[in-house]
Amino acid sequence: MANIAKKVSWSGKNEESRGEETPLLNGSEEVRSSRQLSGAPIFHVGRLSTVDLEDDITTEEDPVRSRPKEIPHNEKLLSLKFESLDYDNSENQLFLEEERRMSHMSFRCLEISRWVICGLIGVFTGLIACFIDIMVETLAGIKYYVVKENIEKFTEVGGLYISLILWAVLNSAFVMVGAIIVACFEPIAAGSGIPQIKCYLNGVKIPRVVRLKTLVVKVCGVICSVAGGLAVGKEGPMIHSGAVVAAGVSQGRSTSLKKDFKIFEYFRRDTEKRDFVSAGAAAGVSAAFGAPVGGVLFSLEEGASFWNQMLTWRIFFASMISTFTLNFFLSVYHGKTGELSSPGLINFGSFDLESVQYNLYEIPLFICMGAIGGLLGALFNVLNYWLTIFRIRYVHRPCLQVMEAMLVAAVTAAVSFAMIYTSNDCQPLKMESSDEYPLQLFCADGEYNAMATAFFNTPERSVRSLFHNPPGTYNPQTLGYFTLTYFLLACWTYGLTVSAGVFIPSLLIGAAWGRLFGILLSYMTNSKSIWADPGKYALMGAAAQLGGIVRMTLSLTVILVEATGNVTYGLPIMLVLMTAKIVGDYFIEGLYDIHIKLQSVPFLHWEAPATSHWLTAREVMSSPVTCFNRLEKVGTIVDVLSNTATNHNGFPVIVRAGATDIGEEGGKLCGLILRSQLIVLLKHKVFVERAQSRLSLRKLQLKDFRDAYPRFPPIQSIHVSQDERECMMDLSEFMNPTPYTVPQETSLPRVFKLFRALGLRHLVVVDDENKVVGLVTRKDLARYHLGKHGLEELQLAQT
Amino acid sequence: MANIAKKVSWSGKNEESRGEETPLLNGSEEVRSSRQLSGAPIFHVGRLSTVDLEDDITTEEDPVRSRPKEIPHNEKLLSLKFESLDYDNSENQLFLEEERRMSHMSFRCLEISRWVICGLIGVFTGLIACFIDIMVETLAGIKYYVVKENIEKFTEVGGLYISLILWAVLNSAFVMVGAIIVACFEPIAAGSGIPQIKCYLNGVKIPRVVRLKTLVVKVCGVICSVAGGLAVGKEGPMIHSGAVVAAGVSQGRSTSLKKDFKIFEYFRRDTEKRDFVSAGAAAGVSAAFGAPVGGVLFSLEEGASFWNQMLTWRIFFASMISTFTLNFFLSVYHGKTGELSSPGLINFGSFDLESVQYNLYEIPLFICMGAIGGLLGALFNVLNYWLTIFRIRYVHRPCLQVMEAMLVAAVTAAVSFAMIYTSNDCQPLKMESSDEYPLQLFCADGEYNAMATAFFNTPERSVRSLFHNPPGTYNPQTLGYFTLTYFLLACWTYGLTVSAGVFIPSLLIGAAWGRLFGILLSYMTNSKSIWADPGKYALMGAAAQLGGIVRMTLSLTVILVEATGNVTYGLPIMLVLMTAKIVGDYFIEGLYDIHIKLQSVPFLHWEAPATSHWLTAREVMSSPVTCFNRLEKVGTIVDVLSNTATNHNGFPVIVRAGATDIGEEGGKLCGLILRSQLIVLLKHKVFVERAQSRLSLRKLQLKDFRDAYPRFPPIQSIHVSQDERECMMDLSEFMNPTPYTVPQETSLPRVFKLFRALGLRHLVVVDDENKVVGLVTRKDLARYHLGKHGLEELQLAQT
Repeated sequence: MANIAKKVSWSGKNEESRGEETPLLNGSEEVRSSRQLSGAPIFHVGRLSTVDLEDDITTEEDPVRSRPKEIPHNEKLLSLKFESLDYDNSENQLFLEEERRMSHMSFRCLEISRWVICGLIGVFTGLIACFIDIMVETLAGIKYYVVKENIEKFTEVGGLYISLILWAVLNSAFVMVGAIIVACFEPIAAGSGIPQIKCYLNGVKIPRVVRLKTLVVKVCGVICSVAGGLAVGKEGPMIHSGAVVAAGVSQGRSTSLKKDFKIFEYFRRDTEKRDFVSAGAAAGVSAAFGAPVGGVLFSLEEGASFWNQMLTWRIFFASMISTFTLNFFLSVYHGKTGELSSPGLINFGSFDLESVQYNLYEIPLFICMGAIGGLLGALFNVLNYWLTIFRIRYVHRPCLQVMEAMLVAAVTAAVSFAMIYTSNDCQPLKMESSDEYPLQLFCADGEYNAMATAFFNTPERSVRSLFHNPPGTYNPQTLGYFTLTYFLLACWTYGLTVSAGVFIPSLLIGAAWGRLFGILLSYMTNSKSIWADPGKYALMGAAAQLGGIVRMTLSLTVILVEATGNVTYGLPIMLVLMTAKIVGDYFIEGLYDIHIKLQSVPFLHWEAPATSHWLTAREVMSSPVTCFNRLEKVGTIVDVLSNTATNHNGFPVIVRAGATDIGEEGGKLCGLILRSQLIVLLKHKVFVERAQSRLSLRKLQLKDFRDAYPRFPPIQSIHVSQDERECMMDLSEFMNPTPYTVPQETSLPRVFKLFRALGLRHLVVVDDENKVVGLVTRKDLARYHLGKHGLEELQLAQT
Repeated sequence: MANIAKKVSWSGKNEESRGEETPLLNGSEEVRSSRQLSGAPIFHVGRLSTVDLEDDITTEEDPVRSRPKEIPHNEKLLSLKFESLDYDNSENQLFLEEERRMSHMSFRCLEISRWVICGLIGVFTGLIACFIDIMVETLAGIKYYVVKENIEKFTEVGGLYISLILWAVLNSAFVMVGAIIVACFEPIAAGSGIPQIKCYLNGVKIPRVVRLKTLVVKVCGVICSVAGGLAVGKEGPMIHSGAVVAAGVSQGRSTSLKKDFKIFEYFRRDTEKRDFVSAGAAAGVSAAFGAPVGGVLFSLEEGASFWNQMLTWRIFFASMISTFTLNFFLSVYHGKTGELSSPGLINFGSFDLESVQYNLYEIPLFICMGAIGGLLGALFNVLNYWLTIFRIRYVHRPCLQVMEAMLVAAVTAAVSFAMIYTSNDCQPLKMESSDEYPLQLFCADGEYNAMATAFFNTPERSVRSLFHNPPGTYNPQTLGYFTLTYFLLACWTYGLTVSAGVFIPSLLIGAAWGRLFGILLSYMTNSKSIWADPGKYALMGAAAQLGGIVRMTLSLTVILVEATGNVTYGLPIMLVLMTAKIVGDYFIEGLYDIHIKLQSVPFLHWEAPATSHWLTAREVMSSPVTCFNRLEKVGTIVDVLSNTATNHNGFPVIVRAGATDIGEEGGKLCGLILRSQLIVLLKHKVFVERAQSRLSLRKLQLKDFRDAYPRFPPIQSIHVSQDERECMMDLSEFMNPTPYTVPQETSLPRVFKLFRALGLRHLVVVDDENKVVGLVTRKDLARYHLGKHGLEELQLAQT
């Protein structure tokens, strides 16, 4: 079976409990084939048959060198490896009893604790951002100081290659540390973490993504990679960090540290946790860009399925606290207590009120810039896509990954050095320059090298210089060369095994060509007065480039508006981002979506594909379904759970109509029970016989489920004796007695809407007698997508 | 039956088709009583029994004067008069066939037309805002010029009472025109329209709220009332105007003008229309405050149930276009083409970058101001609540309403005049003053009367003066008196039969006491330098007062931040609004919610009451349900539809299990059909017999339903002959074959979540054999709310 692909996943190493390669769902091939018959005749399914697939491989690769059992890249597959989060509460009897016992006051206390948690999330996220900022500034300051001293020394006596080596070695050393901790300890901490958080908020459980270890590695990794001079930013990882903080704080314990504070136990379930993770992600955005509203919109744009007013308000609170904490501690650190002047990690600086005005005739120019940004963004994404496929194929061993990262660091230093060395763009030194490390190099006294402003600096400072330095600070040539080199460097860097974001490099590339655009405009029209401010074009270019790469829209507009601290640019930024998105989408998807697809994550979009009304639940659902009886034998349950071939997570509970009709196909649905619940039941040996013989004195409580959450033990670790296998389990009390159901004739968009709006994990399909006929899960819905030739169906793969 | 209340509704006059008073749902009393038995024992229902009710009346009112059949105020009732909008598509065969016929390209065209419509909504809303602004400025300019000339003339010669009379007469004249058109032509256009739009977006059909006539009356009315010098703003009505524009444009026709452009026919259903109305409301906010992001958040906060990324992005687009249109045309009008300096109707002016800094130790002060705002807001709401009840009881004849409005206008002028006359706060005249009509009155030459700046001005200008005039421009006494009088005037004014908003008066009251607060602070601390800028406190006071009255949170923060054009104040504004909301909620609800409750609208909040897990669908649902068979006799259908006692709008379609079991209770659910669909079927006489005899040549299409939307004829207007009554109708093709269902045991929060998230109108409750046992509609859910003593149940009233 060629479609069992083995590949380097986000998690880097296989989960212990499911390390073995398992065959596809029993009988799923048959089911799928029969679907084709029942499907509507016009419906075009772009199925990759096994033959097609092998054809692909043989035509693309040298048949000798290729590993025939591997699929080179698999955005045409959907992985079954990822599990879903349950946004729908399992309202079983235990839960209802607890809720009913709770007074009005307890609900109010819960509400207050939610606010407290959001406040804490904000504070911790702000502190982490603060820590990262101070560490990066300190380390980068030392590095640039050392290199600058060295360069100045050797500029006079000759032998600048020593400075180059020093610079390259320093960079590589930092990056090596960063890459090693990521590659060896926590591969999930690589990259910006935004795709992973997007998936998490979408309802996909990405293993280890919100663990404490991930956070530690992420924070250290991002400090190293930014200090190591890579073309990366420290903003993207803040979103991931905020999410981890939220997941940790809201649970009131750390499973890794084996420390349980015995608080917030009510929130130990997917529903509540996901809400807090939204808040954490928003707090991260807020701390990164000083954009609390942008953070809220980011969370909503990426995560929300059901908009809830109170939740949104709490998210906003977390965001506000986060940016405030960062602001406060940074201003204390900078010795300006109480001034609150740095609301975010990146600060675009305040645009002059005079210069922020734009004229109506500039709007077409902005739209034009948006189109350029879309094109360049698509180019960036295509290059990065190829590179990622190359990496998936050839660079999947940790040592190779570390070496690649070090290579990139050294090359970055070398290229920067070469650019600075060959540049002859000297500018007079000004006292109020925002650039902290002006390099004189071969310039006359009192002048500095303009190329060095862009390269010999942290990217955040470079962006700010491009936005705010007065007209004439940069030569067009300098900007042109800089754009080109930095574009390639950033493209190479994204996807390395280091913690780093792509926001700032994108902004920097865009700001550079945007400023160039502005300068060229003023050359062409020969009227310096009108186009006096290239900083405005730098801002639009930055927006266009970032929009072209990540394709975020609403939240990005607000983030940029908030980061500039001025609402006047709202409309042009929105137009630029929209154009960039439309142009870019014509060629290829956004960067994050590419990486999500390459991981074959069953990601649910906002709506079902437009042309999917042909499909009904009957065609979409998985069947036959493994069901349990209300009173089920322990042995049966253990066998079903141990079956690695199916690995189901939810089981409808049925009542057979009359005890006589044993042979009858299916039974009436009376509930739904989850694997995790069954595991807890088995662990506590909640058997009917034991209850009758009073062996188990204590009644199982919701607390037992909460204690086991979220790391439920695998079935293999639970010992069930041969005697116990003959016992019976009564599931009535623990199953969800009112699962959502749909009839078989329901159209796919309708199923999709229900599933997405309520954040379901399992949706039972019943016939007109309420008998179970199938089960719809995330992968059944995520499988369909609109391709070039209409509706396409993705293959399912076990890995 | 005392709970059949007759009252003055928003619509002012009774709907033609349901003018007669109808008894309560058949048997509903029995159902309700039996519920008490099955309900959980601890569950406390604050039922108003008939006896309680009459007690209330007799203790409160003189028994002779009271009209015994009327309930004085009815926030304890839920009206059955309001129908729901259907946010869930009826996916019947016709619909599915149409969708399946559509190619990928047609879906793309639809998507593009959605964008075009949103653009148009933005343009028209912006133009309307522009028109209102210009008209108000012109009329108010003339009025103030005339009065000012007159005052100056009589200040010297004595006899100022003539000026007073002139002012009062001018005001009353304007207001009379405004009140007459509202009271006589379209009573729904009264007030700000925000409560009505809130209800509409929530899914309640408010009669005539989005009609063209309403828009015309609203626009003229708001011009008159603002020009008439009432303590009102023109911003709130913009939201209503935007919504009407959206409803009109998106349907591609005007039923009132009998003009059908034959475009956008696809959008002629509740789902699509509601989406566009959200965009319209957002565009309205955006035009009013120059706050596009705030507009989006307003729409989401008030309306959205299911967050959809593309929809939000379109809403944002409409908002952006709207503020841009307004900005562009206003700048053209003011002769500064291309400068784009007035993004909204109200412009707070730009706060100096120096003065916007706040210090950490000021935050407790801001929170304190928030608490004051909450208190004053609650006081405002309580006073207005009493006033509204008074109005409902005694002022419900149009002529009385017009007279009251005129009285308020005259009193406003008189009080203003008296305040100005008695004030001795003279300030030196400055050239750059933002005040256009400085009154010298009894001041020395080169000075002006400070009280007149606040009173003798449009409220927008007054707000701006309070925010930006330099320290020392106002005496504390002036501000104190002004706050007091304006508070009372604004409270009296809100709820008059004129089109007007409460935003600006609230801001003005708050700005006044906020500035006073700032001045007192600087007095107390004797250090003028630190508290130099009372404008900052004016802003916080304005936020606190507005928050205390309307209790909006997220959107209001963003609106205020955008209106000030500066994000630095984000955190303090949020804290102030939060405090104001918490403090205010302790006493009474927000102003809009009070008015919604007084109209007994079945408004669904975000979540079910916290302590409602006791209740299940069985207790909540209405039963028995009127069902139809798949093949139903026309006579039966007509009889059911004509039954004014029930007036149901949705009917489950059932199949009886085997034709033999006629006596069997209930049948298996196989679909759901709406009253409106049945009406269209009856109108087109889609009978089985006619189809067989080929009498009706044309097959009924979706177009026929769309043409009838939204004003479906009443059943009385459809003639069905005695022969036709014997015919049969086949509902299979027209019913929704896959309605959402829940089992009887489902808890109320779960039912609520499904209902709210999917925007349902009918939710069928089935037993475990898929037989219909009940129907949950909006009123069944809206009935439960958390009162002082736990969960309470509202009574249902037919009016």
